[in-house]
Amino acid sequence: MSLIADTPKPPYYAVIFTSHRTEGDNGYDQMANRMIELALKQPGFLGIESAREDVGITVSYWSDLESIKQWKANTQHQEAQMLGHQKWYSSFKTRISKVERDYGI
Amino acid sequence: MSLIADTPKPPYYAVIFTSHRTEGDNGYDQMANRMIELALKQPGFLGIESAREDVGITVSYWSDLESIKQWKANTQHQEAQMLGHQKWYSSFKTRISKVERDYGI
Repeated sequence: MSLIADTPKPPYYAVIFTSHRTEGDNGYDQMANRMIELALKQPGFLGIESAREDVGITVSYWSDLESIKQWKANTQHQEAQMLGHQKWYSSFKTRISKVERDYGI
Repeated sequence: MSLIADTPKPPYYAVIFTSHRTEGDNGYDQMANRMIELALKQPGFLGIESAREDVGITVSYWSDLESIKQWKANTQHQEAQMLGHQKWYSSFKTRISKVERDYGI
């Protein structure tokens, strides 16, 4: 998987997830890897980019809003979201956005 | 500055900048800090989030497309963009997106 997502021509959607972690791993890394593997199999999934320093930023790309809705409702993902609320994140923000234009080298 | 941007109620805009750095600093850190200071003063600027591991992700938030256009055209920022192309980034992707919905804790 390329570290810069190889997304198609816009429009498509980006879910920007910014978070602060709590102390310790508490099963986080294993679940994070499981969720990436699971996301890759979802209809409409286009790619993912992720980095963490003081704050963590994960951007996942999707073909349409319905695919994002289905992924949010996925049973295993819902379990991960619940544990995220309870254990792993002291704060987070999720932003659903429509990519209108892109460019790069 | 909070590490998770304190953005207003949507809609607003997100510029997602994902990059791979070349080896060495080559004046990058100083310019990156200058650009953040300068961005903070721009009309329509709402906040910024940034993290780098294997890939760097910087998301800046803006009230409207015109503010993004003005920032891209800023003389000092244009110089930084040119040096980014020439020296600092082996690859990058910039995505302009409209945030339609957000939620968090």
